[in-house]
Amino acid sequence: MFDTVPLAQVTRGSQLEVIYRGAIAVVNTHGELVASAGDPNLTTFLRSSAKPFQLLPLVESGGADRFGFSERELAVMAASHNGEEFHVEAVTGILQRLGLDVNALQCGTHAPAYAPAARALEDAGQQPNALHNNCSGKHSGMLAQCLGRKLPIESYLDPQHPIQITIKQTLAELAGIPPDSIELATDGCSVPTFAIPLTASARAFAQLADPSQWSEPRRSALHRVASAMMAYPEMVGGTQRLDTDVMRAGKGRVVVKGGAEGYYGMGILPLGLGVALKLEDGDAGRGRNAVVIEVLRQLGALDDDSLVALQRYAAGPFKNHRGLTVGQVQPCFDLTH
Amino acid sequence: MFDTVPLAQVTRGSQLEVIYRGAIAVVNTHGELVASAGDPNLTTFLRSSAKPFQLLPLVESGGADRFGFSERELAVMAASHNGEEFHVEAVTGILQRLGLDVNALQCGTHAPAYAPAARALEDAGQQPNALHNNCSGKHSGMLAQCLGRKLPIESYLDPQHPIQITIKQTLAELAGIPPDSIELATDGCSVPTFAIPLTASARAFAQLADPSQWSEPRRSALHRVASAMMAYPEMVGGTQRLDTDVMRAGKGRVVVKGGAEGYYGMGILPLGLGVALKLEDGDAGRGRNAVVIEVLRQLGALDDDSLVALQRYAAGPFKNHRGLTVGQVQPCFDLTH
Repeated sequence: MFDTVPLAQVTRGSQLEVIYRGAIAVVNTHGELVASAGDPNLTTFLRSSAKPFQLLPLVESGGADRFGFSERELAVMAASHNGEEFHVEAVTGILQRLGLDVNALQCGTHAPAYAPAARALEDAGQQPNALHNNCSGKHSGMLAQCLGRKLPIESYLDPQHPIQITIKQTLAELAGIPPDSIELATDGCSVPTFAIPLTASARAFAQLADPSQWSEPRRSALHRVASAMMAYPEMVGGTQRLDTDVMRAGKGRVVVKGGAEGYYGMGILPLGLGVALKLEDGDAGRGRNAVVIEVLRQLGALDDDSLVALQRYAAGPFKNHRGLTVGQVQPCFDLTH
Repeated sequence: MFDTVPLAQVTRGSQLEVIYRGAIAVVNTHGELVASAGDPNLTTFLRSSAKPFQLLPLVESGGADRFGFSERELAVMAASHNGEEFHVEAVTGILQRLGLDVNALQCGTHAPAYAPAARALEDAGQQPNALHNNCSGKHSGMLAQCLGRKLPIESYLDPQHPIQITIKQTLAELAGIPPDSIELATDGCSVPTFAIPLTASARAFAQLADPSQWSEPRRSALHRVASAMMAYPEMVGGTQRLDTDVMRAGKGRVVVKGGAEGYYGMGILPLGLGVALKLEDGDAGRGRNAVVIEVLRQLGALDDDSLVALQRYAAGPFKNHRGLTVGQVQPCFDLTH
């Protein structure tokens, strides 16, 4: 079982209606715990929060330069994108650069996550394909890793494929843990996914925020991945997405990547801190959003204007279908200790 | 805070990924606790699980007969419906019978809960109106209560309106608690909503399952509301809705009504039991569904064929976008003690 604490609650009138439990770890670049809520060593899957680290070996190995990938293209390789037209075009361009097409992607197919994009596809009488899968950018980046190292592409999902071994090794180094301690399972898009303690994950995110302890080429690669994500936040998520809007509001101060089932990772650049958090029930909406914004507020990671810009994600009162205020979402954790 | 326990968990590979916590109370018609998980006296809002009891005074007072409402119409008055065409038609018919129209409904407007119905409306270039609100049936039933008692309809949402006072009193009697102990707040559709202990709510559901301890007209009214819901389960929810599918599979053995934020109420007819449960995080999907089916299984409320028919809601393995089995949902509570 997870050792979690209430992170946010919903009240209606004066009565409690919902509790979101979870755990948070805030660490510095050396992996020292700076603040926490619940069990900071809670161990579970990063899911898509691993994407910046799954991309890193491509950049670190010089593959991004060899193929001439733009920052915008790197950003979509670290994305859980909405399947909007500009995402699909970017991934299509990456595959073309590699001499591949949609058939090389083994992520599977789902309709665009952004409802209007799914609707537009339907209206055009088109079926979604693997390009619309929110992970298609990551998969195109993995294919680039294969080609850059002259490795077979058919088996790139296999945990024993050299690129997957490199990715796992890279994550372990950034997280400061032995590779063998990483528990593997299969992600929604069929690649290996990693279960590690929140502290370890937060430590990896701290390296994105401040890569100065690393020698080259890792130092520049970490900087380049974080910069690409912050420069093109719409590529990392899309319209009305928390990741996108936090990085947009953060203006280069925060690099973030959400994962499925209530996971969230953040690097806070001015503070050189990494954050990993998990909502134990997998919430990725009202509860998760409020907790993420509250963490940023409590850490002083964002200025007041940025917080105002993110108000729709933050805790606060909510209204019913007639516009009456009927309750409120409240954070109930304190990182300042 | 709620005193809850893990009710269901999700594992990916061999690792825990999600926990759903909550509480369950199972009581007999006398309110005696038969089984529980977590705090059976957890107090929170019934939300839409109160609908059968919000309808009861109309039937009990003879209003349903006076207006000649059919079982099908009574079922939609106890519904959180999908806003499908047949729901909208039924509510329109009720209002016509009352000499009213959509403008009398004060529930507010939202798009049909069933996506294809919302889409069909959009394709027809029509805006959703209050008839599509999942609570429009309940509101039409409240309007009928006003007219049946020759009371003003404009103020029917007011907690001090005589019909709301009667509804609260009725719920208190069925739940075996003092009316003054019921905490009120405003529901999503603007009517008063009731916070009471799970045991009390379960006791009210037990009366739907077995009304024999009541004298007339309540006895027949309880029977009539439960029978209407079980006879026309598609009116109570709609296509691909847990409430509808459970009552359809139950073939007269169970009467159920879900509420927002992970609330669920059930009456088990052959056992004369009532159940109320709450997922503390408000989950109304994977977790809530698995818990509801597991409660029915553990209580022996449904036969094997019925459980097979409900398999899509039950705990079990799940697949990713490529059809690979990657994890499973498992119940983790035991009511048999």
